[in-house]
Amino acid sequence: MARIVMKFGGTSVADLDRIRNVAQRVKREVDYGNQVAVVVSAMSGVTNQLVKWCTELSPLHDAREYDAVVATGEQVTSGLLAITLQEMGIDARSWQGWQIPLRTDTAHGKARIQSIEGAELVRRMETGQVAVVAGFQGIAPDNRITTLGRGGSDTSAVALAAALKADRCDIYTDVDGVYTTDPRIVPKARKLAKIAYEEMLELASVGAKVLQTRSVELAMNERVRVRVLSSFLDAPTNDPLGENAGTLVVDEDEIVEKENVSGIAYSRDEAKITVRRVPDRPGIAAAIFGKLSEDNVNVDMIVQNISADGTTDMTFTVGKADLPRARAALAEIQTQINYSEVLEDPNVAKISVVGVGMRSHAGVANTMFSALADKAINIQVISTSEIKVSVLIAAEYTELAVRALHTAYGLDAA
Amino acid sequence: MARIVMKFGGTSVADLDRIRNVAQRVKREVDYGNQVAVVVSAMSGVTNQLVKWCTELSPLHDAREYDAVVATGEQVTSGLLAITLQEMGIDARSWQGWQIPLRTDTAHGKARIQSIEGAELVRRMETGQVAVVAGFQGIAPDNRITTLGRGGSDTSAVALAAALKADRCDIYTDVDGVYTTDPRIVPKARKLAKIAYEEMLELASVGAKVLQTRSVELAMNERVRVRVLSSFLDAPTNDPLGENAGTLVVDEDEIVEKENVSGIAYSRDEAKITVRRVPDRPGIAAAIFGKLSEDNVNVDMIVQNISADGTTDMTFTVGKADLPRARAALAEIQTQINYSEVLEDPNVAKISVVGVGMRSHAGVANTMFSALADKAINIQVISTSEIKVSVLIAAEYTELAVRALHTAYGLDAA
Repeated sequence: MARIVMKFGGTSVADLDRIRNVAQRVKREVDYGNQVAVVVSAMSGVTNQLVKWCTELSPLHDAREYDAVVATGEQVTSGLLAITLQEMGIDARSWQGWQIPLRTDTAHGKARIQSIEGAELVRRMETGQVAVVAGFQGIAPDNRITTLGRGGSDTSAVALAAALKADRCDIYTDVDGVYTTDPRIVPKARKLAKIAYEEMLELASVGAKVLQTRSVELAMNERVRVRVLSSFLDAPTNDPLGENAGTLVVDEDEIVEKENVSGIAYSRDEAKITVRRVPDRPGIAAAIFGKLSEDNVNVDMIVQNISADGTTDMTFTVGKADLPRARAALAEIQTQINYSEVLEDPNVAKISVVGVGMRSHAGVANTMFSALADKAINIQVISTSEIKVSVLIAAEYTELAVRALHTAYGLDAA
Repeated sequence: MARIVMKFGGTSVADLDRIRNVAQRVKREVDYGNQVAVVVSAMSGVTNQLVKWCTELSPLHDAREYDAVVATGEQVTSGLLAITLQEMGIDARSWQGWQIPLRTDTAHGKARIQSIEGAELVRRMETGQVAVVAGFQGIAPDNRITTLGRGGSDTSAVALAAALKADRCDIYTDVDGVYTTDPRIVPKARKLAKIAYEEMLELASVGAKVLQTRSVELAMNERVRVRVLSSFLDAPTNDPLGENAGTLVVDEDEIVEKENVSGIAYSRDEAKITVRRVPDRPGIAAAIFGKLSEDNVNVDMIVQNISADGTTDMTFTVGKADLPRARAALAEIQTQINYSEVLEDPNVAKISVVGVGMRSHAGVANTMFSALADKAINIQVISTSEIKVSVLIAAEYTELAVRALHTAYGLDAA
């Protein structure tokens, strides 16, 4: 007997047939003797429609009203799934965020969860009742509905799993697990049976869009065992590592055989900016990045070369969508900073190798540089963290680089 | 300065343009210096879609889950209208049933309002904020969402008007008021400037589907002045009896010149049943109508003729949809009652003349009988109340009868 939280995204509940399919999966867990809470998203397309209405009526709409409108999508799904489960003879009831209550702060449209009162849910789950929870939403201290922002249902599910002290949080999605890299680029990509939180976090934030970053952070902090699996394959057995069981995201201590590198990620969503001939004196970096932050431009990789003739070049990457804002911000501080020019290059890709094993293995970065050099791919920027090495290269080499690295780190499937 | 509740039905908020139109009407009342609460229905078609989903997933679905699903329709409209009002520079916020709270009993799907805590709404309305209330819904003692049943938004509006001690409850709909009869049958039908609650109640329950019966009962009991008007005509002036002002439903004391007859209503929704040769002894009526009530068959007109040879014929009408249930119920008690046979006739129409003035005027019924006799229309059943005379006739004479009576009572427009 285990207590589990199951989460189903919008495509998994897109119509009545798929809701019935979800109910079958829930029934299976109940039949195994598990205590089950289910977190559901809105039927796919519904949230977009609701958002569109709000925006059409007022581009700068009140986020509190937006939340009241948009939260209805999940409310509908929760009621429909409860009805379907009951039709199958399973005791079930729906829970809205305010009924649990799942308390958040007042940051409407992107609220953060503050607490979940799980006692009543646990009491009912222990009697065999399935809790069907509307994802993505909560209630603010002023008694108004909040939403957690796009992808917030993953976060709802993980937070609920933590509050209910669940053994596992199963995230059903349209992929069947986490791969060593994008299988569309590398057909030999392997599905990982287990991956550490930290690795998942790096993979999630660099382009493998399987789980929302916030949900992984939360899972790591609360030590919630998360499983990513497909809602379109046959249902898995009761063994979390059995057939069709997807990928388990866990503490690295649970991973016995750590690989040096678990996966290769890439992102073509960034643009490179170089600010040329910046005076090399204290406070310059703060002036540039302070201004960018003020103007809501997210900066990722940053490289500053050593100084020559009292000036230096500052290179960094920003999201492509932020490029116009970054350009404007830099123009505003030109007189203050006194740089010579700004170069932009949107045709870049960031390639990252990720793995908790690299902490204890030297040479991981060097393998990367050699493999890229063998293919004559020029590295423009390098950035490293404890479990990740990222390089910026010309976008046209993305697939070539990912394939070469996948082979170089021995990740290719047999 | 007046405090008013405005209620808009599904066709009045069917799309974003109509929601903007509704916001304009609300703005107009605010500009007049009025304090305003608005009650909204779901956008037309939405409720039907939600109901259909529930029914497809389970014909006998849990009414509590049905309520959670269906109540989202009004929630969406309330948020969208609040956003639109804010865009016009009007302070506004949405209120869900559970936020007010509007408390109901636990009869999910057809709950009855028990109390409304209006103090916070009044406090905000006094500061100029418009309260946009999701109609048709409330919260049960167990903290779950309830709906009031079809047409419940009218009832929400009237109950809210009572709780807020509003000067008036304006029900915007797709007709421009209450007419002396159906204008599709009698082109000379006149719009009434005022009508008494009791008259409205009789008209509502016999086929003039302008206001939901429950909402009129509630208005009568709570002495809420209700106005029925069109959301498609130009907005009325600040005078509740001015141009495009629709019909005011009020206490009969407010109506100075009472007409003998205010309107002619008709219904083709009933079927006639005659139970032949019932033994004429005490307890027989109780046995028949007790059984029908037990089986949820609503009986309307009842006629029992005097006895001949120790037996009598019992004639009554039921809703056409209830006919099979009524037939089954009567079959079950055949051996107990020992009647000879059951005759059914679904091809009947009930024609009613309604007016509070008839209390003090003799001859109202006689005018009816003469007018029908002049057209050679046979009366099958007669039933009278203090302010109504109803007759059952063959359905094919419906239009002829309504026109003849409209003329006979001097209701034709000049």
